[in-house]
Amino acid sequence: MDNSTLIGMVSIITAGVTMAIGGMIPALGQGKSIAAALNSLAQQPDANQTITRTLFVGLAMLESVAIYCFVIAMILIFANPFWNHFIA
Amino acid sequence: MDNSTLIGMVSIITAGVTMAIGGMIPALGQGKSIAAALNSLAQQPDANQTITRTLFVGLAMLESVAIYCFVIAMILIFANPFWNHFIA
Amino acid sequence: MDNSTLIGMVSIITAGVTMAIGGMIPALGQGKSIAAALNSLAQQPDANQTITRTLFVGLAMLESVAIYCFVIAMILIFANPFWNHFIA
Repeated sequence: MDNSTLIGMVSIITAGVTMAIGGMIPALGQGKSIAAALNSLAQQPDANQTITRTLFVGLAMLESVAIYCFVIAMILIFANPFWNHFIA
Repeated sequence: MDNSTLIGMVSIITAGVTMAIGGMIPALGQGKSIAAALNSLAQQPDANQTITRTLFVGLAMLESVAIYCFVIAMILIFANPFWNHFIA
Repeated sequence: MDNSTLIGMVSIITAGVTMAIGGMIPALGQGKSIAAALNSLAQQPDANQTITRTLFVGLAMLESVAIYCFVIAMILIFANPFWNHFIA
């Protein structure tokens, strides 16, 4: 078990755990937002323009948090400077 | 237990755990959204166009979080640069 | 306990755990959705076309999350590149 193995193992575990844990609460928030938007649509069907526009902006903001985790995981796998140092 | 075995073991475990944990909360959010949509349909059957469109966009956003985890798991299994380094 | 034994053990455990944990919450979401659909049908029997169509699309989305876990488990059992490397 030399240095590059340790760096590789830690990078793999962290990439997976970051995506799995980091996507949980954005997904929970998106679920809550969609449920609230659908309840609002049932209550005020005439305001559907405003409700869906607000929902989509909100979903995009929540999605961005999940995408940050995805970017970190991808960087750890494909552009990891620590790994590049040890295999150089 | 040499270096490539360790990297392989860690990759297998992380791939499975990422998909299992990462798919949980998107699925919970989808369940909540579908339940809310069905309640809204019962309350306002005339707004079914708006409700189902909003639901399907929301489900797609939630599905994308699960797909990020699937992509990470697939990369760890089939395109793992750490593994490729050690078997080279 | 040589390298291929370790990889085999880890693959077996991860395949089972991935499917077991990963199938839990999609099944919970499907249960919630079906319960909500049945309540909605009792409340608005005339909207049964819309309600059942929305339910079936939603169930398919939730099923897909469970199918991702199934695919990962199958790959770990039948097309495991780590195992193939060690028995080559």
